[in-house]
Order: sequence, then C-alpha cells, then structure tokens
Amino acid sequence: ALGVLESCFKEKFGTPRQPQLAPSSRARLRVKAEFIPAQSLKGLADFSHVWLLSYFHLNTNKIFLSTVHQPRLRGKTVGVFASRSPHRPSPIGLSLARLLSVESDTLHLSEVDLVDGTPILDLKPYIPAYDCLPQASGGWTESADARELAVEFSPLALGEVRRLERAGATLLERLIKEVLRQDLRNPRDRSQMKEGKPLEVFVYDFDVRYEVRGGVARVTEVLSYSKLAKQAK
Amino acid sequence: ALGVLESCFKEKFGTPRQPQLAPSSRARLRVKAEFIPAQSLKGLADFSHVWLLSYFHLNTNKIFLSTVHQPRLRGKTVGVFASRSPHRPSPIGLSLARLLSVESDTLHLSEVDLVDGTPILDLKPYIPAYDCLPQASGGWTESADARELAVEFSPLALGEVRRLERAGATLLERLIKEVLRQDLRNPRDRSQMKEGKPLEVFVYDFDVRYEVRGGVARVTEVLSYSKLAKQAK
Repeated sequence: ALGVLESCFKEKFGTPRQPQLAPSSRARLRVKAEFIPAQSLKGLADFSHVWLLSYFHLNTNKIFLSTVHQPRLRGKTVGVFASRSPHRPSPIGLSLARLLSVESDTLHLSEVDLVDGTPILDLKPYIPAYDCLPQASGGWTESADARELAVEFSPLALGEVRRLERAGATLLERLIKEVLRQDLRNPRDRSQMKEGKPLEVFVYDFDVRYEVRGGVARVTEVLSYSKLAKQAK
Repeated sequence: ALGVLESCFKEKFGTPRQPQLAPSSRARLRVKAEFIPAQSLKGLADFSHVWLLSYFHLNTNKIFLSTVHQPRLRGKTVGVFASRSPHRPSPIGLSLARLLSVESDTLHLSEVDLVDGTPILDLKPYIPAYDCLPQASGGWTESADARELAVEFSPLALGEVRRLERAGATLLERLIKEVLRQDLRNPRDRSQMKEGKPLEVFVYDFDVRYEVRGGVARVTEVLSYSKLAKQAK
C-alpha cells in the first residue's frame, strides 16, 4: 500500500455509500517515503479529482456471495459484479475523491467514502476525457430510489455542535447532515429499523447519537471522545 | 482473478493507451464458474460500460520509477501517481470498457485498452452519477497534444483487408486505422522513430506491417498467422 487513509469516518456504519454524498467529509493520505512523493506526486496537484484504489480491510466475508441486497432497491438483489458493494471476491475499492491540495507527501481530500485506516493500493488522476461518459447508462441505479431523511438537531446537540465548530471542527453540522440524510440503517435489520431506536455514528472524535422516527433523523447528543473518557472514570 | 481477458490486441505494442481511441476493438471476458456468473452478473447487462480492474501482468519493471515519460508531453516527465502508466508500484489497471452484451458467463466488450491474456481482478458497473464529473480538471492531460498520424494502405494491404473482412474479420480496416492513428512509437527510441522503419502490430490473428514517413502511417502488408505458418515451412 502507498499509505493508509486518515478519514473523518471512524466506522463502516456512517461511512457514505458514495463519495459525492458527503462534500464536507475530509481525509488525508500520506504517501510513504519509499514511494518518493516529491517526485511521484509531481503534477498531481493540477488535477481536481483522484481515483483511490483501496483494500477493503473491514470486509469480513469469509464466503463468496454472488448477489447483494441493495437497500436502494428495497431489498431486491443484484449480482455482485453489477454493484459497487465492498463484499466482492477481490476486495478492491474504487473511489473518486476531490483533491483539495497536495502538501509535500500528503494529499488533502474531500468527498470520501472510505473509513479511517483504509490501505490505499494505488492512486490515479481522474482524467475527464477518459473517465467521464455522461451518456452511459447506469442500469438499475437509475431507477433506484434514494430515500433521504430530513435531519434535525435537539437544542442540546445543536449547542454542542456550534461550540465544537467554534473550537475548530469546521463544517461539523453540515457533515452530520450529509451523513444522516442517507438512511444508514439496514432495512433488513428489524432492531435498527425500530422507530426511535438509539443509533450512533462516529465522525472525527465525535460520537453523534441520533434516532429515526418516520422520515426524520433527530440528533439527540454530540459527545467528544475525551468527554466520554471522563464519564467512564 | 475473475477470468482472463481475450482481446483483439496481442502485444503491448499496438494496444491503445486509452480505451475510447479504439471503438472497433473487441474483447471477451469469461467469468470463472466458481464466481457463479448466472447470479453474480445479474443486472449487469443493463449498464452500458464497465470498469475492469486488471493486473498488469506484462509489467516487467523490477525497480520503482517515481516519474514517467509522457509521449504526449514530448518527453517531459510527470509523477507516476499523476499518470495512468502501467509501470506503478501496485500494478493494477483501471479501464473503462463498453459492454456490448452479456451472454451467460461471458461479457462481450469494445473500447478496450488491454492486451490479450490480461487477468481481470474485478469488474464494477460504471455509474455515471458517481463516476462522471465533466467539470473535473484534467491537469497536464488538458494541454498535452495528441499527435495523430494519417493512416493509408498499400493496394496489396487494402485488398487483403477487404478479403479478410468478407471472410468475417468485421471492422478490421477501421480497427487498424484507430490503432495506427495514435503514434505507437516511443519518441525516445531512435530506431523506431527512423523514417520508413518497418514496424508491425498484431491484432486478432493478423500481422499488420507498416511504416511511418512524416505524419503518415502506411500499411504495407496484412498477413494472417496461418499464412505465416505456411511461409515458415
């Protein structure tokens, strides 16, 4: 691997299914010294987007599953090779990320859909003349329905988010909204789907607690790890 | 690997640098039975294009080169991670191909830039909503100059191509033109760059002999392997 991605997403649950859904997400890739970043990254900063080929290290499937359930298809299945599911025989991910800047050996990225700690196998520039085919047909994804949630905050949670943003956690409110707007729950998990079931996602150093009722995700609390560590004492 | 690509391109020399340059190219991927193609390919036929993640098996580089010469940049170098060069630390290729049809376990493809025998590691649908960013900036590729050749045939070669097309080698003339139009020669190879130097590319079962003078590639002969085998006797 060229390096390991440091991402704002700390767990699979809460990591977006596609990168453009979370423009406020942030990640950083430091290219290992053995790949001579001063030379091997030359010219990369002029590209606005990069392909990240990644190793799905959290893919725990031990057996090959030929079809995958598509939440967006309301439980219908498609072949694994007609999907971008991480559960595939060669666990290689293909993600398109926005390249914000290149600073010496480090890429600063946004629009990421990879979890913290993901090994990056390769890095390629996005070349619109090769890679952008607006007239391509998107198969089942064209009729799949996106099912978005409205996102709201309790006064307590909103106060905390504002405080954290003033302390440097820029874009936190927007990021939380982008993450929860996609319904993260697995429609086949009855416990998760129960109205008002307490749920949580981890972004940066924050534990975002929320619950879903009807089409609304309501953030009840936002806690920082350091605070949680104090509570545990 | 899911399978090994059968491609009309038989050698690295003559295999296009990007897939859209050769719309008349053809390839076939048979997915191995262990990946249960009847199920794992379900829904794929509705997509017009697929990503092929491939293993650059002909990559013979033993050492890591941090920069690559770009023929299109007239000898200037860019960092390997700012290029799509096959000579990279993780020799994984990313190719976008047009999916003509899916027939049981076999994908019929066009617009390929991979050589015959390339192992395919993964297959993913092209999803324009994720993958097509027309406003992305293409860095150095935007100013690089494409340097195309005119392609013409000797009467002998054209006669042979017509005969082969009647015998079933459809699109052969167009394919040869698409392949030779890109100047395949390495500008740093003085022997190859010599005016009138005899050159050859192999497509399907045909040996296409040609030479370049000025900005014109002239096909002198098109021989089929079977005929060559007879000559050798």
